Amino acid sequence: MNTNYERYKTLLGKIADISYAGAVLSWDQEVMMPSKGAGFRARQLATLAGISHQQSTDDELGRLLQELDKDLSLSEKEKRNVKRSLKDYQERKKFTVDFIETLNLATSEGFQAWQTAKQQNNFKLFEPKLEKLLELKRRECEILGYTDHPYDALIDQYEPGMTTKSIALLFTNVRKQLVPFVKQIAASRQNDNSFMKKQYDTAKQWQFGLDVLRQMGYDFEAGRQDLSSHPFTTSFNPLDVRVTTRVNEHDFNEMLWSCIHEGGHGLYEQGLLPENYGLPAGEAISLGIHESQSRLWENNVGRCLPFWKANFKKLQALFPENLEGVSVNDFFKAMNQVKPSLIRTNADELTYHFHIMIRFEVEKALLEGSIKVNQVPEYWNSKYKEYLGIDVPDDTQGVLQDVHWSHGGFGYFPTYSLGSFYAAQLYAQAKKELQNLEAEIEKGNSKPLLSWLREKIHIHGKYHTSEELCVAVTGEKLNFDYFMDYAKQKYSSIYELKQVI
Amino acid sequence: MNTNYERYKTLLGKIADISYAGAVLSWDQEVMMPSKGAGFRARQLATLAGISHQQSTDDELGRLLQELDKDLSLSEKEKRNVKRSLKDYQERKKFTVDFIETLNLATSEGFQAWQTAKQQNNFKLFEPKLEKLLELKRRECEILGYTDHPYDALIDQYEPGMTTKSIALLFTNVRKQLVPFVKQIAASRQNDNSFMKKQYDTAKQWQFGLDVLRQMGYDFEAGRQDLSSHPFTTSFNPLDVRVTTRVNEHDFNEMLWSCIHEGGHGLYEQGLLPENYGLPAGEAISLGIHESQSRLWENNVGRCLPFWKANFKKLQALFPENLEGVSVNDFFKAMNQVKPSLIRTNADELTYHFHIMIRFEVEKALLEGSIKVNQVPEYWNSKYKEYLGIDVPDDTQGVLQDVHWSHGGFGYFPTYSLGSFYAAQLYAQAKKELQNLEAEIEKGNSKPLLSWLREKIHIHGKYHTSEELCVAVTGEKLNFDYFMDYAKQKYSSIYELKQVI
Repeated sequence: MNTNYERYKTLLGKIADISYAGAVLSWDQEVMMPSKGAGFRARQLATLAGISHQQSTDDELGRLLQELDKDLSLSEKEKRNVKRSLKDYQERKKFTVDFIETLNLATSEGFQAWQTAKQQNNFKLFEPKLEKLLELKRRECEILGYTDHPYDALIDQYEPGMTTKSIALLFTNVRKQLVPFVKQIAASRQNDNSFMKKQYDTAKQWQFGLDVLRQMGYDFEAGRQDLSSHPFTTSFNPLDVRVTTRVNEHDFNEMLWSCIHEGGHGLYEQGLLPENYGLPAGEAISLGIHESQSRLWENNVGRCLPFWKANFKKLQALFPENLEGVSVNDFFKAMNQVKPSLIRTNADELTYHFHIMIRFEVEKALLEGSIKVNQVPEYWNSKYKEYLGIDVPDDTQGVLQDVHWSHGGFGYFPTYSLGSFYAAQLYAQAKKELQNLEAEIEKGNSKPLLSWLREKIHIHGKYHTSEELCVAVTGEKLNFDYFMDYAKQKYSSIYELKQVI
Repeated sequence: MNTNYERYKTLLGKIADISYAGAVLSWDQEVMMPSKGAGFRARQLATLAGISHQQSTDDELGRLLQELDKDLSLSEKEKRNVKRSLKDYQERKKFTVDFIETLNLATSEGFQAWQTAKQQNNFKLFEPKLEKLLELKRRECEILGYTDHPYDALIDQYEPGMTTKSIALLFTNVRKQLVPFVKQIAASRQNDNSFMKKQYDTAKQWQFGLDVLRQMGYDFEAGRQDLSSHPFTTSFNPLDVRVTTRVNEHDFNEMLWSCIHEGGHGLYEQGLLPENYGLPAGEAISLGIHESQSRLWENNVGRCLPFWKANFKKLQALFPENLEGVSVNDFFKAMNQVKPSLIRTNADELTYHFHIMIRFEVEKALLEGSIKVNQVPEYWNSKYKEYLGIDVPDDTQGVLQDVHWSHGGFGYFPTYSLGSFYAAQLYAQAKKELQNLEAEIEKGNSKPLLSWLREKIHIHGKYHTSEELCVAVTGEKLNFDYFMDYAKQKYSSIYELKQVI
């Protein structure tokens, strides 16, 4: 037994205990906490974060990691754990307590200002705080270091290995291929989706959602679903993974897609190995790969015909008053209406990426200084006109719609698109390897798919980077063609497009 | 500003953050956590407990407390905070990490053994672990120190200032007065309570319970009620206090009494002042005083006629099929049936104290060595015959019924009786000072009572000891006569006793 390695595991286990304790408090805050509890909860969370930061930048851990990094007796798995932990450690050590506190203050003030600005539909109220945040994020780029573009340093935190350049290349494809394809769809006749917006009893929706999660293989003895205003997934260890959803009586889509989406995230977390608790091997690779799991279930499974051949009859029996006379094909078309719109979170799976592309372009321009903060709304609106062909009526529905910047989350948005593109590539591979995949899904059996995802992705934790994983599983790096092929095949049929451009 | 005192407040605030974070994890464990999460949750809790222990025995805190204890510039309130913190600090410092770990192991093994022993109705399976726990508890008494009786050291941890002798004196009164009074009741005709055990829809029970809590003044913006198998109250700060209850479809009593009882605990916690967070002034005095608040609401309010004059009609309207033809007086009598029984938690408010008295006598005898662990069941059963007049059929329903010993909780039980006796004395005082108290309760208005409890007890936190508080509020030390007077007056009328002995 390697005593250094054992000690390293013990230290990381304790840090995990504290971080996950914080995660329990955050979950409770969103889902259970009475309103007046907010103030004290914030300080309890701050204290836990402080202890966790202190322990994860502790000198003993640093010495241990340096020694282990040179230890040739470690197995390959152990080496990769050490390498990733050392990278994390070194990055954390770059930040002074002063910088972290300044950033915390700026995000907390930024969040307040963003809320007010959105409420009052006045970007000017957010502007000075966004200036401050941008300045701090620029400093963060310098602290972290980068080769090509300052934005790289931020992207790397969410998607290690990914760069501004490689993402820009992906979005060039989006612009060249997806934008014209969506224009072609927009010129076609829209399918009826009015029955999705009838009155759907919330208790029955809830039951249906639980059934769908069970069918996906979500383990309710190692998790639970609750309601929250913003759906999310959180994990306290692979044996306790919580998802939330929201239910709208007048729009069946909300519960359905957030339930399947978060379920996909939840399955990834439940698939990590308990024995790797606290170690990089016990953590998800990146936000992009996490999102690939949620998008794969949401789009490649949930928004496709085989899944509904298994489930539509059950749904119809629950809501006969809304779905009488609706065929499974009508239902499939209704859930796949493509239509440029203002709000990212309500977008269909194709125009969704235009929203992300715009964020990416704005963030990149801000960080390199090619636009100023006060130019953001105008720049934003012009991009919406260009890619989505729509006029943004106000900032609340425009540049102020999302919370991320106020939290300092620059570089986060691109992982949403990466997730869908990875999902398409991974799902194409799964179809190749599992010959009856969709026939089984049509029978309500998604076990083969889950087993495949477990074996290929989940159980390995952070053993690979995203790119390594993609190559290991599919034989090639991330390739936008898979997404485009999926989109063309599916939507040409839905919109009966004769000739696809 | 006294910088030492500010620093002391900061340190205590951080310790509180960690302890309350642990409380959130424990609440979640009981109420929300999926079953498979238990293993990792235990280690997360242990890590938090370790950090909290380390910080609360930290040398800096010790030096600070020593200095502050000699600081004449402090206000009286500040002095009391420091004094109590210093006492806690010194007690904690007496225990070595080795002793704490040994005790933790013994309680964890003890709990396992107790569960099996109770399940298999075999005290022998618990005996060796109880031996071990007793040995450790004896060592704990020596470590803590005592003047008269080793048991004093344990009692003092739950009820500072209370001693074996003073509790023995109270129970002498119980034996002399309450035992014969209950015998007199037992010889009378029992009132019908069969309608309490009809089928009561659980959703309606739940709604009724929430209404009762609201009526008591429980603030749902600073708390919530959930279901759990063992009802309990926990607090994360005065603005987030959680209670739980259980609902039995076939026994209306369970939800009702646990709801009001925990509500009483909850009101105490909600009544502590947020500005005293982390300080002794922000904590409840003792288990006995805590129990006085739950018992006062449960018994002196909830099991008395005025409360039901305000509520019975509502209840009848909810459950007409069960309560048609039942008068408020029938209902009042039904909920107050006195009858010796085997299980403490199901006991009525009079015979309840016989159960506690027996625990007290057994614990005392064990600690002084006048009986051995293997003699406990026989000793226990003989006491049940003597005080309650019943034969204990087996250990599961006898000495194994309660979990406390397996957790190392010796000295805890007496606080249950102290709570009821304090409650009677405090309520008698409230009636003296608030002339319309019961008339208002009859109208559904318990605000005057809550305001009185807040002002006299809640807001002061640990400023007083139990005894000081009792004298400050009622003008005299704890006096069993108040309880006995309450009991005689109430039950003579319920059982139509002509001549009370």
